[in-house]
Amino acid sequence: MENKNETIRKAPIGVFDSGVGGLTVAREIMRNLPNERIVYFGDTARVPYGSKSKDTIIRYAKQIIRFLRTQDVKAIVIACNTASALALEEVEKELDIPIIGVVEPGARVAAATTKNGKIGVIGTESTINSHMYPQLIKEYRPDVTVFGKACPLFCPLVEEGWLKDPVTEEVAKRYLKDLLKEDIDTLILGCTHYPLLRSLLSGLVGDQIQLVNPAYETAKELERLLKKENLANEGEKAPGKEPYRFFVSDAADKFKNFANSILPYDIETTRKINIEEY
Amino acid sequence: MENKNETIRKAPIGVFDSGVGGLTVAREIMRNLPNERIVYFGDTARVPYGSKSKDTIIRYAKQIIRFLRTQDVKAIVIACNTASALALEEVEKELDIPIIGVVEPGARVAAATTKNGKIGVIGTESTINSHMYPQLIKEYRPDVTVFGKACPLFCPLVEEGWLKDPVTEEVAKRYLKDLLKEDIDTLILGCTHYPLLRSLLSGLVGDQIQLVNPAYETAKELERLLKKENLANEGEKAPGKEPYRFFVSDAADKFKNFANSILPYDIETTRKINIEEY
Repeated sequence: MENKNETIRKAPIGVFDSGVGGLTVAREIMRNLPNERIVYFGDTARVPYGSKSKDTIIRYAKQIIRFLRTQDVKAIVIACNTASALALEEVEKELDIPIIGVVEPGARVAAATTKNGKIGVIGTESTINSHMYPQLIKEYRPDVTVFGKACPLFCPLVEEGWLKDPVTEEVAKRYLKDLLKEDIDTLILGCTHYPLLRSLLSGLVGDQIQLVNPAYETAKELERLLKKENLANEGEKAPGKEPYRFFVSDAADKFKNFANSILPYDIETTRKINIEEY
Repeated sequence: MENKNETIRKAPIGVFDSGVGGLTVAREIMRNLPNERIVYFGDTARVPYGSKSKDTIIRYAKQIIRFLRTQDVKAIVIACNTASALALEEVEKELDIPIIGVVEPGARVAAATTKNGKIGVIGTESTINSHMYPQLIKEYRPDVTVFGKACPLFCPLVEEGWLKDPVTEEVAKRYLKDLLKEDIDTLILGCTHYPLLRSLLSGLVGDQIQLVNPAYETAKELERLLKKENLANEGEKAPGKEPYRFFVSDAADKFKNFANSILPYDIETTRKINIEEY
């Protein structure tokens, strides 16, 4: 008979984002923690978060966490840089299960990666204006200089599917121009959409600059955390239950199509919920 | 002494949009109906509407109308193509004051403008997928063929301020390519952001194609409606009251900066409200 701890260990991880971007984080969790189940929520009714204020993002994050708790998750990953930067500190105070964001793991690895002490960060307006990346990086390496640049057109370009397009390349050149002048040797992809532009961006910045993908670092951090808290599922995923469940606040079909283009397997169903009720 | 009718005639017009786009409609109302006061609401916490579903847009529109009623408006203008296309029919059923959208005036003028019977419409995904423009145009001119094209990158490009930029021109060329092959002689700017791209677009499509700006047509329609319903304010605007008041659901400062770049006068204050409470 399963004991209570075993039941908790077999519970899913809650992962949320403003929309589809966090799927790059879910993808890394699927690859790196194959025994874990996932409940994913994409806030497609209120996307994008990147131009919204801190108060609003905190309110949205609290609603989503209340929803995820109804799904009996054992831990939560904020798979959104904006929500991690603006809401994590506030929401973790009230929570009795582990929660991590993508900013801290990304910041830590960037601090460990840079040799010349010059790091660039690209992200949404809200993420860059929050100064969370520079703040966290300096906790590890006070000597480092961090240069931030908001890239508001990258998300819509990714959602349009123009991943290797001359237009996207021209936009990227313009956004990165000032960063490249600063002689950075490390560049953080500080929005969960941006790993989908990885090959275009790495072609543009060249071999001298290391790209840091917080999605991957977050999956590794989650692995360490689950082990430490004795929450990792050592056995098979619970039989008879869907390993990965997807919820959105709007436009479920569009989400499903996008998800199927970037996940390693095809989603069958995406459920729409009214997040404002939580 | 003012009688009740006079008080109603001096009441403001409620104007709403998902964000800043509807300011192009407010601007036309200010120009064409200088005696009228305006209460503007921009739903900046939940922008953009263009990729959201009909149910969600109807729910948002109802909340906003409830808020505008608290401001004692005498009529409402849905200054957003997506919300006009998806929600007007539903919300006008429940309302005892006049309400108009931007789609019907735009459709009517486009039907009257075309000579060869071929009209193009550009707009958000939701507006184009709703088929409201073709449906309304055909009520006036069943012989007309309407070609729609969603242009999801135009709004973020406008909000980035790249109004006359080579990147925007390249994006526009790509979006308009198929429409131009159809030999259209009339093109509806079916999103309230697009009049801000007017000079770029008219340079691109040439003199042979008439651009229809529903913002202007809506202001003229509002003028006719107010006269017909005996609601037009014939005298001066009520003294001692702000002629134009602006409310948003988030990021009031950013809204104000954008508004000041496109309105004929400078906004002093923008108030933030929690629209989900209405």
